[in-house]
Amino acid sequence: MTLEAIKYHKGELKILDQLLLPLESRYIQINCVEDGWHAIHSMQVRGAPAIAIVGCLSLAVELQRELPVEKKRLRREIEGKLNYLVSARPTAVNMKTAAEYLISLVNQLDQDERINSDEMKAKFIEAIEEMPKKDLADNQAIGEAGADAILARQENDGPVRILTHCNTGSLATSAYGTALGIVRSLFARDKIEHVYCTETRPYNQGARLTAYELVHEKIPSTLICDSTVATLMRTRRISAVVVGADRVAANGDTANKIGTYQIAVVAARHSVPLYVAAPLTTIDFSIATGKQIIIEERPEREMTHINNIRIAAPGIACWNPAFDLTPAELITGIVTEKGVFQPGELLDKLHGPVG
Amino acid sequence: MTLEAIKYHKGELKILDQLLLPLESRYIQINCVEDGWHAIHSMQVRGAPAIAIVGCLSLAVELQRELPVEKKRLRREIEGKLNYLVSARPTAVNMKTAAEYLISLVNQLDQDERINSDEMKAKFIEAIEEMPKKDLADNQAIGEAGADAILARQENDGPVRILTHCNTGSLATSAYGTALGIVRSLFARDKIEHVYCTETRPYNQGARLTAYELVHEKIPSTLICDSTVATLMRTRRISAVVVGADRVAANGDTANKIGTYQIAVVAARHSVPLYVAAPLTTIDFSIATGKQIIIEERPEREMTHINNIRIAAPGIACWNPAFDLTPAELITGIVTEKGVFQPGELLDKLHGPVG
Repeated sequence: MTLEAIKYHKGELKILDQLLLPLESRYIQINCVEDGWHAIHSMQVRGAPAIAIVGCLSLAVELQRELPVEKKRLRREIEGKLNYLVSARPTAVNMKTAAEYLISLVNQLDQDERINSDEMKAKFIEAIEEMPKKDLADNQAIGEAGADAILARQENDGPVRILTHCNTGSLATSAYGTALGIVRSLFARDKIEHVYCTETRPYNQGARLTAYELVHEKIPSTLICDSTVATLMRTRRISAVVVGADRVAANGDTANKIGTYQIAVVAARHSVPLYVAAPLTTIDFSIATGKQIIIEERPEREMTHINNIRIAAPGIACWNPAFDLTPAELITGIVTEKGVFQPGELLDKLHGPVG
Repeated sequence: MTLEAIKYHKGELKILDQLLLPLESRYIQINCVEDGWHAIHSMQVRGAPAIAIVGCLSLAVELQRELPVEKKRLRREIEGKLNYLVSARPTAVNMKTAAEYLISLVNQLDQDERINSDEMKAKFIEAIEEMPKKDLADNQAIGEAGADAILARQENDGPVRILTHCNTGSLATSAYGTALGIVRSLFARDKIEHVYCTETRPYNQGARLTAYELVHEKIPSTLICDSTVATLMRTRRISAVVVGADRVAANGDTANKIGTYQIAVVAARHSVPLYVAAPLTTIDFSIATGKQIIIEERPEREMTHINNIRIAAPGIACWNPAFDLTPAELITGIVTEKGVFQPGELLDKLHGPVG
């Protein structure tokens, strides 16, 4: 059965606590926006699309529990809470994009004199409930488009050997996954020879989460250390790298999990194509290049401890940037729900007349 | 006080158990060759020079405890035990080189009719006892030569920002270190602005051991994830990378800790010079290129567990090559106790007439 990391039913939200995976599968209850903020900030939920969905659903459950208030006040409260949710993980753009959309929606509803406060709330909650459905459909479209692009490069149409980094699967999205969605689509077509996933220090999302999903789906796969990528490419044929994106600038520069840039440099040397799976919500046309992306630095303790046990020498300072920036020139294609684009095509093809 | 990881006094050998570092500093007693083999195989001692020294000293202590035997039998026993020690870690050439030297010595002593069995044993043990002294002197020479080479490239003669990988310090050698010896020499000259060390998965020698040494010596330093090297080079000026070597082929191709090749690729892209610190014992002129070096693959458990706690998803397969191969073209200089050479100069300058 497919992994269900986010369980939502009208008024109730539970998420799989990803800090406890892979050894323990425990769901935690999210009753309000503050619970959502903490789950995002502490990385009980991670992955840019999943962050946005859990953040917005946390607002939906809170609203369903609250007493009715008048429309103006409802609008103000929603706006404040959305801005608060954006602050939980500043690098991921999806929550920001979702917040902008929902703030604009709540303003429209507020101004619509045909509806009362209860109807306004109900319509707003409905809009949030559509988000995970759209995310799933988008991921499936990304998976198909990415699989097409990778297979098109192969002689004899595959099978292929894929490397992926971090976790971009069912645990990072509403379901199915972005980069790991491409793997799922390839596997569904019986075109996967082997998948390699990196550990992805310091949080080990690859070793804990991607490996967990690959084992769960019975996809032939092997875990490697982050340091082993270059040797993997040198000694074993790799057809393509697929990674996710926390934020893509208008020129295609991509902020993603630390290590992505290093893999991109190594892939370029070994002529291995690198695809960034990015739902349109991840593409931020308001920033021209990656230079404008602020990279979140996370606490030293993520590096120095595992499961509360110190693994690094006491007294050593640590530098723990959570993301890095891969320049567009190292990216073969950006895989969206509207198809695969070269980085330089994003502005014209996705942001032009279609806006 | 400088770290003393190998304590030897006539007939007694104790080594710092590196598996327990950095949280616990416990010495273990090595009474015989079998103890030496296990300490090397289990990585209680690691680092190619330290492996050779502990291996040979384990033979010295065993010989000092044994009853006298006649010369022929002594020779045969020594030869068998040295070959056994070589088998503990096949990639590291130092133990093999030391064994070849000692086997040739014991053959000479056996054939020398002027000495009896006791004298033969005493001379043989003396030769072993010279080895750590020579290693220390060699490391200091490597440190000075490497520091000269790095500073010669700087405008204004420094100070410099160095990246190192794995552990090549007092914990990997008799004392002082090879690549970390270069850092020590630079620091002694007050030319270190900052040192970055990688975690070095899966065994975390950087986080556990190099960080421990850097803190111990009060050298300004920061730990980074293996994945962060490319971003470090992109965003902060790095003057040089210094790494050790488990084995260098005649053409300069270098086998070293997994991750070295990846760092070399990334360094080349960022125009950061990369130096391999390699005592002459590490250079194996019997192999023309790195293609002939067999890369040791180590158990999956090193990746899946830390301190006996499982960190990877149950059921995932792992690929755990302990070393990788850096092609000579990515190496700026090979730093030996005889000076710094370009990879292509090794054969002519070190193996020619002086061979």
